Amino acid sequence: MKIRLKNALVLPRAGGEIFRGEVQIEDGKIVYAGKQNDRMFFPADREKDCGGNLLIPGFCNAHAHSAMTLFRGVADDLPLQEWLFDRIFPLEDHLTEEDVYWGTMLAAAEYVRGGVTAAADMYFFPAVAAEVLRRSGIAVALCSGDNDVGGGDVKESLAYMQSRYNTYKGKRRLKYIIGLHAEYTCSDALLEGVADLAATLGAPTYIHCAETLKEVGECSVRRSLTPVEYLHKIGFFDEGGIIAHGTYLDKNDIALLADKNITVASNPSSNLKLASGVAPICSLLKNGVAVALGTDGAASNNALSMFREMYLMSCLQKERMKDAAAVPAEEALRAATETGYKALGFDGGEIAVGRDADLALIDLNAPCMQPLSDIGKSLVYSADTSAVLMTVAGGHIAYENGRFDIGETPEDIYKNAAKCVKRLLKEAERGK
Amino acid sequence: MKIRLKNALVLPRAGGEIFRGEVQIEDGKIVYAGKQNDRMFFPADREKDCGGNLLIPGFCNAHAHSAMTLFRGVADDLPLQEWLFDRIFPLEDHLTEEDVYWGTMLAAAEYVRGGVTAAADMYFFPAVAAEVLRRSGIAVALCSGDNDVGGGDVKESLAYMQSRYNTYKGKRRLKYIIGLHAEYTCSDALLEGVADLAATLGAPTYIHCAETLKEVGECSVRRSLTPVEYLHKIGFFDEGGIIAHGTYLDKNDIALLADKNITVASNPSSNLKLASGVAPICSLLKNGVAVALGTDGAASNNALSMFREMYLMSCLQKERMKDAAAVPAEEALRAATETGYKALGFDGGEIAVGRDADLALIDLNAPCMQPLSDIGKSLVYSADTSAVLMTVAGGHIAYENGRFDIGETPEDIYKNAAKCVKRLLKEAERGK
Repeated sequence: MKIRLKNALVLPRAGGEIFRGEVQIEDGKIVYAGKQNDRMFFPADREKDCGGNLLIPGFCNAHAHSAMTLFRGVADDLPLQEWLFDRIFPLEDHLTEEDVYWGTMLAAAEYVRGGVTAAADMYFFPAVAAEVLRRSGIAVALCSGDNDVGGGDVKESLAYMQSRYNTYKGKRRLKYIIGLHAEYTCSDALLEGVADLAATLGAPTYIHCAETLKEVGECSVRRSLTPVEYLHKIGFFDEGGIIAHGTYLDKNDIALLADKNITVASNPSSNLKLASGVAPICSLLKNGVAVALGTDGAASNNALSMFREMYLMSCLQKERMKDAAAVPAEEALRAATETGYKALGFDGGEIAVGRDADLALIDLNAPCMQPLSDIGKSLVYSADTSAVLMTVAGGHIAYENGRFDIGETPEDIYKNAAKCVKRLLKEAERGK
Repeated sequence: MKIRLKNALVLPRAGGEIFRGEVQIEDGKIVYAGKQNDRMFFPADREKDCGGNLLIPGFCNAHAHSAMTLFRGVADDLPLQEWLFDRIFPLEDHLTEEDVYWGTMLAAAEYVRGGVTAAADMYFFPAVAAEVLRRSGIAVALCSGDNDVGGGDVKESLAYMQSRYNTYKGKRRLKYIIGLHAEYTCSDALLEGVADLAATLGAPTYIHCAETLKEVGECSVRRSLTPVEYLHKIGFFDEGGIIAHGTYLDKNDIALLADKNITVASNPSSNLKLASGVAPICSLLKNGVAVALGTDGAASNNALSMFREMYLMSCLQKERMKDAAAVPAEEALRAATETGYKALGFDGGEIAVGRDADLALIDLNAPCMQPLSDIGKSLVYSADTSAVLMTVAGGHIAYENGRFDIGETPEDIYKNAAKCVKRLLKEAERGK
């Protein structure tokens, strides 16, 4: 499939210079990005006049539990413990492959409606999620969220992880990242086992870490080490990787993360809504720790909008630091694009020749984008998903002007997702 | 004009019960809201099938400087003092009526794109703003933002305010609220003069108050009173009214505001982006102070989205109070609708017979609104302006599916707003 996107403004990367021109796509890759050249021969299957609107790199959602869209609106305005233990876990006990199929489909619709072209997805039935997201063209890093809080065989778990890792190894837009749910839901044997596996495979890891004060406090009391110090000590970070959240990190934690080249996937809106806190983004960036952005699951946040995350990443830091100059817009856009891509090891986050064709077309004629005094600032401080006209994921036009091409129709997705939720609620109720 | 909106779900008010039915509008008023009755005779000029989507009360933006849309993106990521004194004030020195016309037109487009049907507008050339917003059907409270920081005749200022007040008195969807910019930009004579004028007219007042720590600290040092204590003492609050911001309020301030029935128009996103702080919403609500929501100007925020304000009002409090149950969604929706309407004295904020026909149609087929487990929560925690299908302001369909009916075309608005900004930047540069 050859696509020509002409008559566009192009923001090639966060903080880059906007130019007027066109982008050509072939076999899912960007083959030209530059001045418009109508004399150039490019036999496009689809030629689109972008009407002077803005092409930007697509967003990477670096921390998500996609199928949790099913639980949007079932447990809001509740204390964290009640939310998780009394509402979410009992529902998840009854999850089937079909639930994950339709929940991830609903997430795919929301992703492409909002310009998301890559995601880290940590959830049940990852093969199902992979298949669903593949149909939208979204690059997906399946992240192991294993734990043995309720028992479980460590060797079996590690063997499963290794086999998954090998299954997906070498694929261009699909990978499996070994890792665990969190320090507080895993035995030492499992945590150390994954650290060893990472060393064996030379593979980075992924884990929820330092999300709440409770987590950090309990670990510190139990181990006389923070979660980051403990994971560092057992070698969990030795091959690099990602921690999700990182809301509570002290100076030493930050130095350890920087030393091991660990990216923090920050989830500002989830951390607010669950009353967890505000991550020390300024300290992380200042000390050389890469910060990516994620939405977390739609049961905790409750939306999959990277616009909201960018706005919050920047503006919560301004308030926290009492400095309106803190985390300028381009830093937030970088976190939402190239930093996430880099952390997941995908080849996007930038509109440049040779990169994967992951991009979004932004409506400069949306009132919130006008006047065009500083488009880069408006992207972060003024826009929301209403400004997304089109999303191209891996060279596939997944969303365009209200139409979705993601493998199922919105009507079928909504109908089936509703059916799944209804059944799950009934089963969770019965299981009490 | 008679409008029939049928086949809808209707959320009649924040926290109310959603019902399936229809709404009929005549001469700008709601004349029916209830079950669909196809045998009822209603000779509508326009009959719209809402496709099962959700009608909600339109939003009231209780604190705005509409024409500041012109300055969106001209001064971001700067410390507050530099932002205001080096960038915004020099631009405002050169404002003309034409600038305010096009800036307010741009705001009108953004308002109706996002479901806003009423606004408190504090800015230069209020008669121009009133005329612009009237063409969208938006109910507008023009708020005096007078100050005498650079000198000025108190008597003249008061006479002007009184004449404005009388000019607009008794109009249904347009009013003038006397008031001042802030305690720190006005002489005692002017502040006391307005307090006396309020008493004479029996009219409520409007003022920026307790926005920043600096303001509260300086006033406390100067007067041995907080701004709220001082204004209360001189009788500024005796006829009720609104303070904008209220970011820093102590226990005594809150008691005084409650005693005088003062509404706080909170602007969470502006307060974040300018690093001002987070208002004590929970304490206000607990102590019986009404809280409305505003966007502030688009130069400080930088969007006119009440969805963002609702999300932040609720979620910033959850984080502040370390309680995920704090400020439930329906409280935020109430602040954005009926509380604002009540504070400004307009007859909307609720879909009920006899009320002004101010409403928005929300797309339940937007991915972010699915599944429909709790629509009221999703409105606050998941939606953004992408979910607004139609905005009806004062019985006028101002926005519908990408089309604006606000007196000028978006093309003309954008072209002219850009021209105004360019001229202002040049003049501000020359004036240095």
